[in-house]
Amino acid sequence: MTRIDYYHQADAPKANSLVPGASAIVADNEGRILLQRRSDNGRWALPGGVMDIGESIAQAIAREVQEETGLTVEPERIVGVYTDPGHVFAYNDGEVRQQFSICFACRIVGGDLRPSRESIQVKFFPAAEIDGLNVHPSIRLRIEDYLKGKPGAFIR
Amino acid sequence: MTRIDYYHQADAPKANSLVPGASAIVADNEGRILLQRRSDNGRWALPGGVMDIGESIAQAIAREVQEETGLTVEPERIVGVYTDPGHVFAYNDGEVRQQFSICFACRIVGGDLRPSRESIQVKFFPAAEIDGLNVHPSIRLRIEDYLKGKPGAFIR
Repeated sequence: MTRIDYYHQADAPKANSLVPGASAIVADNEGRILLQRRSDNGRWALPGGVMDIGESIAQAIAREVQEETGLTVEPERIVGVYTDPGHVFAYNDGEVRQQFSICFACRIVGGDLRPSRESIQVKFFPAAEIDGLNVHPSIRLRIEDYLKGKPGAFIR
Repeated sequence: MTRIDYYHQADAPKANSLVPGASAIVADNEGRILLQRRSDNGRWALPGGVMDIGESIAQAIAREVQEETGLTVEPERIVGVYTDPGHVFAYNDGEVRQQFSICFACRIVGGDLRPSRESIQVKFFPAAEIDGLNVHPSIRLRIEDYLKGKPGAFIR
């Protein structure tokens, strides 16, 4: 499945789908933030994904982080909700999905860091180093919101 | 369209749908909380509803509160996220939707309180009076979480 991101682009196709998902800010003891390098586009991103029917959002984010990075986490608080209608993802089966992600600050409870099929690299970065990485603006916004330290304040 | 709520019931049908929605805590200057009496089941509930493709979640909650109560509001902070897989809504077209609601504390910026087709009564209640009303436990939980005053802390 290929995916093309459109971010405030005039040629974006019209969204026809809305799927709730979650993204995770996982920080280590030194405050460095966990990023994964996506195998589909080579960009650095937060771990995360969409929720399955039958699970809670807490289960969804723990499952996605475990699958993508090997770490076991628990969501501790909500950073914000990201639902920008100007950001859509076009899949090659005709689905055009609008952005919908709840971002959670998570705490590590176990596991061992390792990459996965979806993530070719997984690494903790000091916030200042993230500025120089290839990160989508929608992901950068979530990291900036997290660093402001105001849980539940960001309704995007 | 009829809707049957199943809340941790052994005879609940299996969910086949997940639709992101929002609910609003709207308080007046005296801290009383706005409830609407639903026309479909007669219970008192928070205003809210599901998001439309093409709008942001902030637009969705403002639209729903306006439609149901006449008030114009802006979401100020996130109370919590409510995604209990044990709570499903069965519709008579075969859809069985799992609970998915983000609850927002909202501020009133205009409008005039009035009921609607979906809400036969709309009224502000002191928190203590809500205990005695016919309110679904899933809605009561959101009000209790709001009253704890910890934005972004509730991941349900």
